[in-house]
Amino acid sequence: MKVYETITGGVTAAQGFKAAGVPAGIKTPGRRDVALLAADSPAAVAAVYTTNQVAAAPVKLDRVRTAAGQAQAVLINSGCANACTGEQGIRDAETSARAVAAELGIDEQLVLVCSTGVIGALLPMDRLLDGAKRAAAALSRDGGDDAAHAIMTTDTVDKQYAVKLLIDGIDVRIGGMCKGSGMIEPNMATMLGFITTDASIGSKALDMALREAVGVSFNKIVVDGDRSTNDTVMLFASGAAGNTELNPDHPQWREFVDALTQVCVELAKKMVMDGEGASKFVTVRVRGARSERDAQLAARAIAKSPLVKTSWFGLDPNWGRVIAAAGYSGAEVDDRRAQIFYGDLCAYDQGKVADAAQLAAMQNVMRERAFDVTVDLHLGTGEDMLYTCDLSHDYVTINAEYTT
Amino acid sequence: MKVYETITGGVTAAQGFKAAGVPAGIKTPGRRDVALLAADSPAAVAAVYTTNQVAAAPVKLDRVRTAAGQAQAVLINSGCANACTGEQGIRDAETSARAVAAELGIDEQLVLVCSTGVIGALLPMDRLLDGAKRAAAALSRDGGDDAAHAIMTTDTVDKQYAVKLLIDGIDVRIGGMCKGSGMIEPNMATMLGFITTDASIGSKALDMALREAVGVSFNKIVVDGDRSTNDTVMLFASGAAGNTELNPDHPQWREFVDALTQVCVELAKKMVMDGEGASKFVTVRVRGARSERDAQLAARAIAKSPLVKTSWFGLDPNWGRVIAAAGYSGAEVDDRRAQIFYGDLCAYDQGKVADAAQLAAMQNVMRERAFDVTVDLHLGTGEDMLYTCDLSHDYVTINAEYTT
Repeated sequence: MKVYETITGGVTAAQGFKAAGVPAGIKTPGRRDVALLAADSPAAVAAVYTTNQVAAAPVKLDRVRTAAGQAQAVLINSGCANACTGEQGIRDAETSARAVAAELGIDEQLVLVCSTGVIGALLPMDRLLDGAKRAAAALSRDGGDDAAHAIMTTDTVDKQYAVKLLIDGIDVRIGGMCKGSGMIEPNMATMLGFITTDASIGSKALDMALREAVGVSFNKIVVDGDRSTNDTVMLFASGAAGNTELNPDHPQWREFVDALTQVCVELAKKMVMDGEGASKFVTVRVRGARSERDAQLAARAIAKSPLVKTSWFGLDPNWGRVIAAAGYSGAEVDDRRAQIFYGDLCAYDQGKVADAAQLAAMQNVMRERAFDVTVDLHLGTGEDMLYTCDLSHDYVTINAEYTT
Repeated sequence: MKVYETITGGVTAAQGFKAAGVPAGIKTPGRRDVALLAADSPAAVAAVYTTNQVAAAPVKLDRVRTAAGQAQAVLINSGCANACTGEQGIRDAETSARAVAAELGIDEQLVLVCSTGVIGALLPMDRLLDGAKRAAAALSRDGGDDAAHAIMTTDTVDKQYAVKLLIDGIDVRIGGMCKGSGMIEPNMATMLGFITTDASIGSKALDMALREAVGVSFNKIVVDGDRSTNDTVMLFASGAAGNTELNPDHPQWREFVDALTQVCVELAKKMVMDGEGASKFVTVRVRGARSERDAQLAARAIAKSPLVKTSWFGLDPNWGRVIAAAGYSGAEVDDRRAQIFYGDLCAYDQGKVADAAQLAAMQNVMRERAFDVTVDLHLGTGEDMLYTCDLSHDYVTINAEYTT
């Protein structure tokens, strides 16, 4: 696939968007924890939400509002998830959106809200509304960086990425920011992602493009296999670039979707790279499965197995744990046919096992920050790929100490 | 349920059985690593095996032999799983059984073999056969303890348990040993269990009794959610007690099954207590689920969630992670109806959250070595229960350093 040119700026790289991030005392005093992203005029919007049955209040509110296909602003806070907060949580989400609408002088139905942080606590509304007011006043074309910092929770680095491409001979930009480092697995998990583009595109086409891009990016990452109550990816299109409206019949539709996919994949990879306590970035590839579904089951079982993940942390090419995980995944596996690779080196070849010298070479592959583990089941043509990380002491430390 | 009287002795508590455990240099030099369990004459046998599609060579051999309903001896080694070892692995398993048969002067079809340890290595046959020979010579009525030590891998303690009960006014004994502390989850996982009884009972009834007991014991424990290639539970009945043959029509059938269940539950609990790096023994209870299947899904998701398990390690009553896990389990969950308890203390009550003082009281509950976490979904009558443990630094250390 073609690689599109990266540009600076994240969520404000595209024309027609401003952002801000301010400290409001919701998280650690002094740290930015309220972000505001706003379009200069109502934008087309598409969104994908958590599949968790326990959805947070902001998710419940946004699901309704984004269904209309238009939005102009989204208020985001870290430090409090506003999840499991009952009717009061819904009222707080509505009140927050109304306050932003008043500040910006726009219809409150065009304002979305996102929260991330501790489950079960009510939003500290005084601090949040004060933060929202200051964020509205601080909105700027250069505010993407502050916003990207304000949405972080256990993230150790901000996550931004943007590209540009030519549509109808005109520069079109797609950029975004995201947060998330724990509770991550395919099908969305404590992650928030915000992407903007200045392409002209209707909300239906935008939704198609987003779903395709999310399917091969945010839904292909695993940190710990937990899925959160708040996961959200939103995509806004301002139309400021002035291209002919994009839809699947546009000759450059595929290029737009590919560029959007590149943005989503790079943002997703940044989350895995910053996975809680992660020291290794591992791409798990399964091929030769009886079916695509089998490949997905096997890849997911491998990427989620604590025994496999700790072996990566320990630089141990323990292919036995890999094949055992494939074996219990529900996928058809025949150990007399399977092959397992670390990088390009074959650890297990249809019953034949690598010797000590070969295993030592594989340990060298594992010393890299990023490496591939590939399973070829030799049973068919099904394949899948996931991005994941190892399970380290730091994961335990971070998650034993977070909250309360 | 009635609690049956415990007696000393594990796998040799029942009459008609001898055992031995010897060091053979397969694991760490000097540590016992070959065990032999033998009945004085052919015994009725029933067995349950791993559901992993990648089954080890001994599992493949034993599946065929135990189907006949009779066996007289089982050779067990630790240090090498004889899994993913192709045709040579099968031949090695057969050769081992034949050697034991020759030593004991019995039909080789009556000899079973079990292996546990590293996947992918061939059995060191010279050492194993030498060990088998010495184990056969060492067989004794008091050998259960040596055998229980010989089957250990990352286990830190041996695991034995035995009870007696009266059947037809005659003392009947049921005792066993098991090993396993990692790769454990419902549906069997790197665990080996060997149970003997001197009850008179046919192999069909024995199979019924074993499946019922395993369903509420070995299949209700979760350490890390990995399932192994070698899991096996075997139950042998010598008939030496001399009771009227047990079957479901026998007036004391229920008592026999309950006593067997007690043995299996206590052995299963010992595995969780000795879970790799475990500092907490947690009983996860889900009730009020829409269906029993929903309860199972929710309990399993909670017991497997790394975020939940690290919160237990951190003494953090983080009920938000518990409800989030239930929410993505596939079970129907409505956070406005659910309740979550630590011990008897309610952390989350249908939208209402415990205050700081109450959460502090829950931390005291969590300071105990063992505690319950209960979720009441208030949607129906489905319930399930699992035994599990926390996820600690020691889990990571043990599994990052094992092998290679």
